[in-house]
Amino acid sequence: MEKYNKIPKHIGIIPDGNRRWAQKNNFEKNEGYKYGVNPGVVLCDLMIKYGVKEVTFYGFTKDNNKRPKYQRDSFTQACIDSVNQVANKNANILVVGNSNSHLFPKELLPYVNKRMYFGDGNININFLINYDWKADIEAGISKKDIREIMSKEISKMDMIIRWGGRTRLSGFLPIQSVYADMYVVDSYWPDFKESDFLDALSWYQDCDPTIGG
Amino acid sequence: MEKYNKIPKHIGIIPDGNRRWAQKNNFEKNEGYKYGVNPGVVLCDLMIKYGVKEVTFYGFTKDNNKRPKYQRDSFTQACIDSVNQVANKNANILVVGNSNSHLFPKELLPYVNKRMYFGDGNININFLINYDWKADIEAGISKKDIREIMSKEISKMDMIIRWGGRTRLSGFLPIQSVYADMYVVDSYWPDFKESDFLDALSWYQDCDPTIGG
Repeated sequence: MEKYNKIPKHIGIIPDGNRRWAQKNNFEKNEGYKYGVNPGVVLCDLMIKYGVKEVTFYGFTKDNNKRPKYQRDSFTQACIDSVNQVANKNANILVVGNSNSHLFPKELLPYVNKRMYFGDGNININFLINYDWKADIEAGISKKDIREIMSKEISKMDMIIRWGGRTRLSGFLPIQSVYADMYVVDSYWPDFKESDFLDALSWYQDCDPTIGG
Repeated sequence: MEKYNKIPKHIGIIPDGNRRWAQKNNFEKNEGYKYGVNPGVVLCDLMIKYGVKEVTFYGFTKDNNKRPKYQRDSFTQACIDSVNQVANKNANILVVGNSNSHLFPKELLPYVNKRMYFGDGNININFLINYDWKADIEAGISKKDIREIMSKEISKMDMIIRWGGRTRLSGFLPIQSVYADMYVVDSYWPDFKESDFLDALSWYQDCDPTIGG
């Protein structure tokens, strides 16, 4: 097991590139998502092993729902399967997103805005499901308190790892991402390898922890 | 002049690495900032030439004020000089930040929250001065409207270019940055070269403009 001086407390994961992976492998676009479930499970095991205390997966957004129904059905199912599988990992699960919509999977309702504790509680695992950054902040606005945003149970992120080569947040937790260091993996999420995570940790060792000071 | 199919409408600039540049060149840390003024002027000329419509410079933040006074004095003066110099460029200037503090330079008060128009108005140039991302959003919260944030006159950014090798937003306009593609230049800001900007534009050609769809 590699040794690192600094382990980020909270890592954000943007598992992008599922459709591009599918096309590259001559599948229909929507077929990529189901190959993205197991990488998330393996990654959670690695995070527990290396002592990461919290992880947030960018599941799907309100904007993603503009895609064709056959794709929506596939990414929604992949999210349900992901949550169910990591709930077996002695993890504490929280789902944040607009659960009042028919596009929110009812299977995940038990986890919405209320963390569910399993076993030893090795790690907090958050999923953004039918999430919208604007609605997140507007929840705080309606209560006149920035501490009351929809994602208030999610702590600030130290690092964000994005697969699929793009270097943008795409609306991923604008409040919690303000000081996060962003590491981009060029390969697509279904091609996840353990070394992607270890390379990200190595890179993080040289990141500067100052907050403007 | 290079040809590009896509020109970002609004580019955010994080001119980082001034102190590291100074140390590399055997100056005192604070000496770097004054070498960061001319790069901003040259960059504005380039943006006008290539048809960029808006640019926002990350000047200094409330958190930066935790630094020693001799450094504060230097970065504040560099910001004043930068604004004065680009105001000569037929540009429309806006300054956003907490102007009620004694750390806000009085020379920039005429530009606060009210864009000043010069000459032909080739480009909108924004500077964040004594800025704080939390205060920015809290202005919207106090008015119960996300459209009333302190930086409401600044449009969403299409691309952010950060000098100095780091890959984080550091609190740079959390609302306007949600869909921005981030391009990182490893060299320090005072070592700015025209090719940094042209390389960023080339890179931008392959960025995906979709917003979740």
